[in-house]
Amino acid sequence: MKEISRWKNFGGDLVVFEHDAKTTQSVMTFAVFIPPQAKEKPVPVLWYLSGLTCTWANVMEKSGIQAYAAKHGVIVVAPDTSPRGENIPDNEQYDLGQGAGFYLSATEQPWAEHYQMDTYITGELQQLIINNFPVDDEKQGVLGHSMGGHGAITLFLKHAKLYKSCSAFSPILSPSDVPWGQKAFQAYLGSNKDTWQAYDATQLVKSHQSEQEILIDQGSEDQFLSTQLPKEDFLAAANEHDQAVMYRLQAGYDHSYYFVASFMEEHIAWHVRQLKES
Amino acid sequence: MKEISRWKNFGGDLVVFEHDAKTTQSVMTFAVFIPPQAKEKPVPVLWYLSGLTCTWANVMEKSGIQAYAAKHGVIVVAPDTSPRGENIPDNEQYDLGQGAGFYLSATEQPWAEHYQMDTYITGELQQLIINNFPVDDEKQGVLGHSMGGHGAITLFLKHAKLYKSCSAFSPILSPSDVPWGQKAFQAYLGSNKDTWQAYDATQLVKSHQSEQEILIDQGSEDQFLSTQLPKEDFLAAANEHDQAVMYRLQAGYDHSYYFVASFMEEHIAWHVRQLKES
Repeated sequence: MKEISRWKNFGGDLVVFEHDAKTTQSVMTFAVFIPPQAKEKPVPVLWYLSGLTCTWANVMEKSGIQAYAAKHGVIVVAPDTSPRGENIPDNEQYDLGQGAGFYLSATEQPWAEHYQMDTYITGELQQLIINNFPVDDEKQGVLGHSMGGHGAITLFLKHAKLYKSCSAFSPILSPSDVPWGQKAFQAYLGSNKDTWQAYDATQLVKSHQSEQEILIDQGSEDQFLSTQLPKEDFLAAANEHDQAVMYRLQAGYDHSYYFVASFMEEHIAWHVRQLKES
Repeated sequence: MKEISRWKNFGGDLVVFEHDAKTTQSVMTFAVFIPPQAKEKPVPVLWYLSGLTCTWANVMEKSGIQAYAAKHGVIVVAPDTSPRGENIPDNEQYDLGQGAGFYLSATEQPWAEHYQMDTYITGELQQLIINNFPVDDEKQGVLGHSMGGHGAITLFLKHAKLYKSCSAFSPILSPSDVPWGQKAFQAYLGSNKDTWQAYDATQLVKSHQSEQEILIDQGSEDQFLSTQLPKEDFLAAANEHDQAVMYRLQAGYDHSYYFVASFMEEHIAWHVRQLKES
């Protein structure tokens, strides 16, 4: 693990690292915000999963998450959205390949060797964080935006022992039914749609539920709302299978980080409350 | 005045405009954050002046200022840092020409025709804002970062009736004595250094004082601190001429927006308090 950059920020430290990841067979980059409280005792950790094209930088530069993490005393980890590099398979379009890992473990060529983001985040990077930072590993939550909102909800449902709280901004809730998800799943998982269900929140919630309520904010003026982010099937499935969801359609907001920033304080407070009770 | 972009943000609106500015004989771009309180009554206005290379976007994307402006109910105006365009004189280096207007009114060629940022901000744009937004024009403050910190302090001292509060992050306090300032003043104002004094905070404060205290934060690890941002002469002159200054050297912080964001809440609260009392 090699430190790339470090900034003092809200009384804590924002640090960017890279490391040779076995899971993805690549150099992976991630950022960690360490609040001042972590100097005294282990603190909860929130995993922030970013959207298409993003790196660790979008959330740390644009969301204000560090202000609220410093206030409440939680570590924030921001992984990259895929493996990257010259030798890593890619696609010229923004919604497949580098920057578009979709938080799944690919089975198809040419992706399977490197695109193992589910296993990387919940296994290898999880262990690296626990081993190197003062985290209370019984108090972990996950949140994300857009593709990362999909990642947050699916990893939360799949890894119930790991994450005790979950929230999402503008998540892709039914990836098997929308262009972004269909394109990625077809490429990474192949044409047998049965395999897609393990990474589709609307399907997952039928067999995996958490006792913790999931918080979801979407903007009513999100330009992707009707085409990529429809909510109805997920909310119906969650309701039928007793997964509590606090769904809020926020009037006037779009898909941007101006939207994410506007509700970040409430999301962090939500996680802190749930982690205290868990 | 033409609306270019609009986002709902923290319950208010972030709007980007462009207009044909007579002062600079160019199209000028600026952003305004309008908090929800402005729907009900005129509110105070804070002018945020950005640093070298910046546009309206840096502060609105990276500083979190909208969160605190929404909390306190103040409008924020973020002008550009210079005129821009194909027909506007420029320099290939980042610290002269487009993106580097230094908040002064140039007298030298080829700059004088367009580089009138002092007059533009305190005259033409001032009037445009008053005419088009619900501002309480008796309650105006100015703040900025780096070159914009220089702009905030010099415009505050020069235009005492306009601005009732002032703060700065990492300001250039003695531009006549440091490379950034010398290069810009030589180009924009010429070689007669007497003319530089009107735009040098350390000189200005000897003849212009405000009853309001100025808040200044600098980072102890700012990479420009000793070369471009020395504070000693300004603090001595302010002290000698009874200009109150709250100077804080913030341990461990650098020149970045991670530093600005860390103290933005305190700066906005400082302005709100001073504007209430003014």
